[in-house]
Amino acid sequence: MTSTPTVPADADPDRPERGDHPGDHPGHHPPSTGPRFDGHRGRWVGASVPRHEDPRLLTGRGRFVDDIALSGMLHAGFVRATVAHARLTGIDLTATREVEGVVAAYDAADLALGDIVAILDRPAEEFTPTAMPILAKDKVRFVGEPVALVVARDPYAVEDGIEAAQVSYDVLDAVTGEESALASDAPRVHDEAPDNVLLDVSMFDTPGVDEAFADAAVTVDVVTRSGRQNALPLETRGVVAAWDARDDQLHVATTTQVPHQVRTVLARCLDVPERTVRVTVPDMGGGFGQKCVVGREEIAAAAAAKRLDRPVKWIEDRREALTAGFLAREQRYRTRAAFDADGQITALDVDIVCDMGAYSCYPFTAGIEPLMASAEMPSVYRVPAYRVRGRALTSNKAPTAPYRGVSRPQYVVAIERVMERAARELGLDPVEVRRRNVITQFPYTGVNGVTYDPGTYRESLDLAEATMRDEGWYEERDRAAAQGRHLGIGYCCFSERTGYGSEAFAKRRMTVVPGFDISEIRMDTSGAVVVTSGTMNHGQSHETTFAQIVADRLGIDVGLVKLRQGDTERISYGWGTFASRSVTIGGSAVALASERLGELLCRIAAHLLETRPENVALDGDGGVVQLDDPTRRLSFTDIADVAHLRAHLLPKDVDPTLTATASFDVPGDGTFSNATHAVVVEADPGTGQVRILRYACVEDCGVVVHPQVVDGQCRGGIAQGIAGALFEEVTYDSHGEPSAASFIDYLVPTASEIPDVSIAHLETPCAFTANGAKGAGEGGTIGAPAAVLNAVNDALRDTGVELDSTPIHPWTVLAALEGTP
Amino acid sequence: MTSTPTVPADADPDRPERGDHPGDHPGHHPPSTGPRFDGHRGRWVGASVPRHEDPRLLTGRGRFVDDIALSGMLHAGFVRATVAHARLTGIDLTATREVEGVVAAYDAADLALGDIVAILDRPAEEFTPTAMPILAKDKVRFVGEPVALVVARDPYAVEDGIEAAQVSYDVLDAVTGEESALASDAPRVHDEAPDNVLLDVSMFDTPGVDEAFADAAVTVDVVTRSGRQNALPLETRGVVAAWDARDDQLHVATTTQVPHQVRTVLARCLDVPERTVRVTVPDMGGGFGQKCVVGREEIAAAAAAKRLDRPVKWIEDRREALTAGFLAREQRYRTRAAFDADGQITALDVDIVCDMGAYSCYPFTAGIEPLMASAEMPSVYRVPAYRVRGRALTSNKAPTAPYRGVSRPQYVVAIERVMERAARELGLDPVEVRRRNVITQFPYTGVNGVTYDPGTYRESLDLAEATMRDEGWYEERDRAAAQGRHLGIGYCCFSERTGYGSEAFAKRRMTVVPGFDISEIRMDTSGAVVVTSGTMNHGQSHETTFAQIVADRLGIDVGLVKLRQGDTERISYGWGTFASRSVTIGGSAVALASERLGELLCRIAAHLLETRPENVALDGDGGVVQLDDPTRRLSFTDIADVAHLRAHLLPKDVDPTLTATASFDVPGDGTFSNATHAVVVEADPGTGQVRILRYACVEDCGVVVHPQVVDGQCRGGIAQGIAGALFEEVTYDSHGEPSAASFIDYLVPTASEIPDVSIAHLETPCAFTANGAKGAGEGGTIGAPAAVLNAVNDALRDTGVELDSTPIHPWTVLAALEGTP
Repeated sequence: MTSTPTVPADADPDRPERGDHPGDHPGHHPPSTGPRFDGHRGRWVGASVPRHEDPRLLTGRGRFVDDIALSGMLHAGFVRATVAHARLTGIDLTATREVEGVVAAYDAADLALGDIVAILDRPAEEFTPTAMPILAKDKVRFVGEPVALVVARDPYAVEDGIEAAQVSYDVLDAVTGEESALASDAPRVHDEAPDNVLLDVSMFDTPGVDEAFADAAVTVDVVTRSGRQNALPLETRGVVAAWDARDDQLHVATTTQVPHQVRTVLARCLDVPERTVRVTVPDMGGGFGQKCVVGREEIAAAAAAKRLDRPVKWIEDRREALTAGFLAREQRYRTRAAFDADGQITALDVDIVCDMGAYSCYPFTAGIEPLMASAEMPSVYRVPAYRVRGRALTSNKAPTAPYRGVSRPQYVVAIERVMERAARELGLDPVEVRRRNVITQFPYTGVNGVTYDPGTYRESLDLAEATMRDEGWYEERDRAAAQGRHLGIGYCCFSERTGYGSEAFAKRRMTVVPGFDISEIRMDTSGAVVVTSGTMNHGQSHETTFAQIVADRLGIDVGLVKLRQGDTERISYGWGTFASRSVTIGGSAVALASERLGELLCRIAAHLLETRPENVALDGDGGVVQLDDPTRRLSFTDIADVAHLRAHLLPKDVDPTLTATASFDVPGDGTFSNATHAVVVEADPGTGQVRILRYACVEDCGVVVHPQVVDGQCRGGIAQGIAGALFEEVTYDSHGEPSAASFIDYLVPTASEIPDVSIAHLETPCAFTANGAKGAGEGGTIGAPAAVLNAVNDALRDTGVELDSTPIHPWTVLAALEGTP
Repeated sequence: MTSTPTVPADADPDRPERGDHPGDHPGHHPPSTGPRFDGHRGRWVGASVPRHEDPRLLTGRGRFVDDIALSGMLHAGFVRATVAHARLTGIDLTATREVEGVVAAYDAADLALGDIVAILDRPAEEFTPTAMPILAKDKVRFVGEPVALVVARDPYAVEDGIEAAQVSYDVLDAVTGEESALASDAPRVHDEAPDNVLLDVSMFDTPGVDEAFADAAVTVDVVTRSGRQNALPLETRGVVAAWDARDDQLHVATTTQVPHQVRTVLARCLDVPERTVRVTVPDMGGGFGQKCVVGREEIAAAAAAKRLDRPVKWIEDRREALTAGFLAREQRYRTRAAFDADGQITALDVDIVCDMGAYSCYPFTAGIEPLMASAEMPSVYRVPAYRVRGRALTSNKAPTAPYRGVSRPQYVVAIERVMERAARELGLDPVEVRRRNVITQFPYTGVNGVTYDPGTYRESLDLAEATMRDEGWYEERDRAAAQGRHLGIGYCCFSERTGYGSEAFAKRRMTVVPGFDISEIRMDTSGAVVVTSGTMNHGQSHETTFAQIVADRLGIDVGLVKLRQGDTERISYGWGTFASRSVTIGGSAVALASERLGELLCRIAAHLLETRPENVALDGDGGVVQLDDPTRRLSFTDIADVAHLRAHLLPKDVDPTLTATASFDVPGDGTFSNATHAVVVEADPGTGQVRILRYACVEDCGVVVHPQVVDGQCRGGIAQGIAGALFEEVTYDSHGEPSAASFIDYLVPTASEIPDVSIAHLETPCAFTANGAKGAGEGGTIGAPAAVLNAVNDALRDTGVELDSTPIHPWTVLAALEGTP
């Protein structure tokens, strides 16, 4: 990978350079010599310390859900719908139950579970709720929908049992896309809904839109589409559930980003108190949003474990993941924009249609994608007038979940294509058009009512362009053109609302508001601390980054901090990890809890030192020092020893827990990370293949806790964005039959297709979080499709063809190039 | 069992009679119709509700440590010393390691673990600390001492491996009791100690002792001895340990009453931070104090699991339990007492010698038994002058742990024998002598500096005697005598310090003070609560009784309350269960935490109802009501729904955790339960066997939370007391070889030997605990030996023989009766 230049927006010349920490592994770092804590960073935040996760993961000692083996454990699998849309006329499991090794087989009536109903719903006049049954009841609504559950002593018997099941259907016409969903004679996916439009909201229609178009020097009108995609975590979904008679609890180990939400849904489906369900999460091999919704399979497997009083395991296979897992991205935007003669945008008028598939998923409704796009479509630009209509359609395809970036990659493609189109119409450089429109004064409240906190929208654009120029890519483009090669440069500017707080959600009229998260921190007698968070690491290195935040605030070695997540028993509630909320919200709660623990340690120390609380402070080196006599000091182990073992020496009003708890909720509209991506591509006139020659990312996610981790997030996101731009697409035929059910047809890029990516960090510390961070999980994915698409169009600039949709197929490129020499 | 009359000291005529609750099982109780909460009792406390533990235990679904089976689990066993006292001259494990199936074999040098050092130590001038190695190092000090650890793939290979080990000894003379320990040429058990007396403390020598003896109308001088006993929980000790790479923790499931203390010791022995050790406790089949100390076997097995990175299980077999488990009770008291002519005691002069065996155990030192006896020996009597010397001896026998009652059964035998002897000398009825000396004014501060809180010392004596008289046992005794039968009536009065708080411990000059305990309570969205406590149920029904305490304070159905214990991750620290501290201290913390949660619910409700906090209150039926408009009410589920899912509606300064935490510590000298036991026995002149004809207990443990449970505790304790009085004894030969290594020789009474016991409850609510309870775990065991011994002496009253020691052997009785007709 290319090296990582870092340009801190608030650079401190005395601060030592960042880089790998010299310690060899967690817990064995040399004594503190770094800078004192400055409110965001101390010795640890900003350093790429060795990951706490690495020792176990690199030595093969990670424990993933499929590594769990319990004595007496049974295996589960699903009889799945073979047609996309049909009434169920019969389910006969007699033969299944007779298969050697099959222990039980259940259909929906047998299990009698409650349906999953999304909670983040909108007012009734805007949204038609639909329920997702755990097993299909009267109808099946997509190929792969679970119809019956088979439980057997081994996975082979499960497959035989599935094979033996007899399901009969009365097949209906399938709804396979916008056209068939909106047709006047369209079959209804949900009988209880009046049509296939579950949400139809015109969120904004500000004054002046029509006037702006009438007065425009230039207008553009562009339809952009994105293909259906699969977030495709390396680890598929899975669950091991077992009833614990002692705790009177169903213990469910599952692959989820939202353990408490799984608990809530399980309790509701089983109609039991939440305390009778415990959800834990083992190590996870990715999620990307696919695992931030609650799957019906884990509910069914868990219910079977409770009924049978035996452990039950279900592991999704790749075919299931590709066809019946949660999908994403299939959206269509028609974007009209007006510009004045100076190249300033004067109005936007947008029509958004999102194909959400067969069901709303918990906790999000089918409305999430068009609502987010409607709210944030103006992106990083000053848009004075704005009209938008957003619709969520239901169809006979596997349901969708909010995949990394949610609808941002798509609305960013729409607005960035507008910028490119306008630049051509205006005869301006596309970067210059962006420069004239980008927000530069902060805080900025947009036409959408959203207030954007300070960012480096303009600076990142300038630096990205400077990188391209300094490296000579513009000359290279000209050289290539002269040689008849098709080389193009593309840009994408965007910001990303991360850290949605409850105010931001409440503003969306949501009735359930996942704003806060909680952290608890405890110190043991050795002075080591255990931090608990309601967020859920699934590859983001929370164990390391949260530890850095804590270590700086307490002034202890980062190796003394251990994070615990993924156990609903360990913390009362947590919304989990999605929407780049972990470091911003969870990490802020961790920071606040650490500060509270520090105050508690000081309070106890002052009492033991027989001085006033104001006369002591953390010494940054694992102790509390008396300010007017620094020879008087107590180490944390001294204090912890008293708190746990000699509690009679504590101040009378201090509980002997050495525990602090804090919750955090981002105020206002949340916070915004931003970035500019710049890409150089070359289109091969022989194959139509697009090769990426250079990829530069300039990003600002506020305070960078761990540069390597942020870079990893960024690079991984860009890889997924490139995948969506050039390769991956879930396709269906007109009957709703999926035609990309294996890696033969679903084209996942490998290291050969993904270029090196250089990443420069601008750092605008966030004023709305307790640690200055803004969230870094999704940015890469958001920026890549538009940047690649723009670069490809630049490479094709002489063909007269404009490509506005992803993925860009080689045959499309070939067709465009056909007329060229 | 005999029915249970109940005589509440603070009886409320409107209160419905106690008894089994009409509900059929937890969670299915009828709606509240009982009395409102009065500060100690509401609808639940005082009712024998169905036990929450029963559904799983009665259906065989309890999970005990030996039920745990992990994949890849290995089994462990110990090569144990075959001689009582020897220098280790060689340990050769070569052949062991070659046994098929043996995975590893370790001696002390291989494992290189820290020793166990008791923490509750005394000042150096009074106490000689000795370390207990995990595996014997230079010496072995009792038969059965662990010398090496063998780990193998199954228990059979373990036994073969043990068999193959070669250990060579240089045998030393054994110290087997007081005489051999104190002899001038006695071999020293611990080379580092100057002699075999580890503690020699004269805790009291008040003015006037010698004068009182000089002026006495009557003096008595009695030597009482108690045999060595085994607490003998049905479930022996055991452990399953496994390294968890994700949590970076050694997870140790073990049979302990003190999980956090096991964590502390393990961390010290392994020299790692406590956070890297997690101790959990499965269901347990009894402990009785034997499991309130930390065993070396669980440390060794856990260390092996960490080294091997594989789960390791060790289950103690019965022979190990009888010979190498923790023992108890072997004590000798010489008690001199002076009485005036009125039968008032004027002075006590006591010499106490306790044979503690080979080692001090964590957390208690070898000093615990003589120190407790020295402090509390005056018992329930007004003693104006007091001199005491207490010694703890070390010997070549298995070490001792504080078995139910600790030294109370023994010092109560001593003082109660004094009362009986004095009565004969004074020509008074023994009950009358007690009546003249018993404390009746409270609070009473004794010659020992201890302040006794209000109890029913006199009332319980009166009621017990009245029971005997009303039932005609005195006439029966006369009738029997006339028939030449040997029937006797015996009494025992005692009180028991329970709920030791940190003040009481600190007064003992202990350097580590196990005073407090902590509770945390959380409410979920269903309104159900989970309560966590640092105490550890091992048969006492905490899950039920703690739930009752919570349910009354919150005004919810007891079935909505679930207790969690036995997981060091769930609560920061807890001292565990011993010294009848669970309901008194842990239960008080639970009560306070419940009250805090109630306040939190009220605060949120007031905010949501838009009224002042003073204008709302818990309604006793799962909700909060507005006082000035009772039509306005919020159920707990309404409130919990807001706290978890709509946190933006909470008051700004309320964290969305719906969690409350409280700690509790008993102030002052703690609290005292009390009781009188009355027993009728008949001695068989043919066999010397003593048969118990009637056993009546009148007890006062403060507020009775669950009558059936208290009765069960009481009856179980009495059974163990009778066992010590008549049957059980761990014996050794002069070489220290144990001669009661199986149930052939160690005589455990069965249902045939244990009589029905009637129990009457007097209830003096305790002012020092938050729930009025005083602790009920140990009383039965404390009272039985003296009551039985006194009854036997009464039966033998015509023989001129006085029996002062336990167990009372049939041949002793036979010898006494030989001279009678």
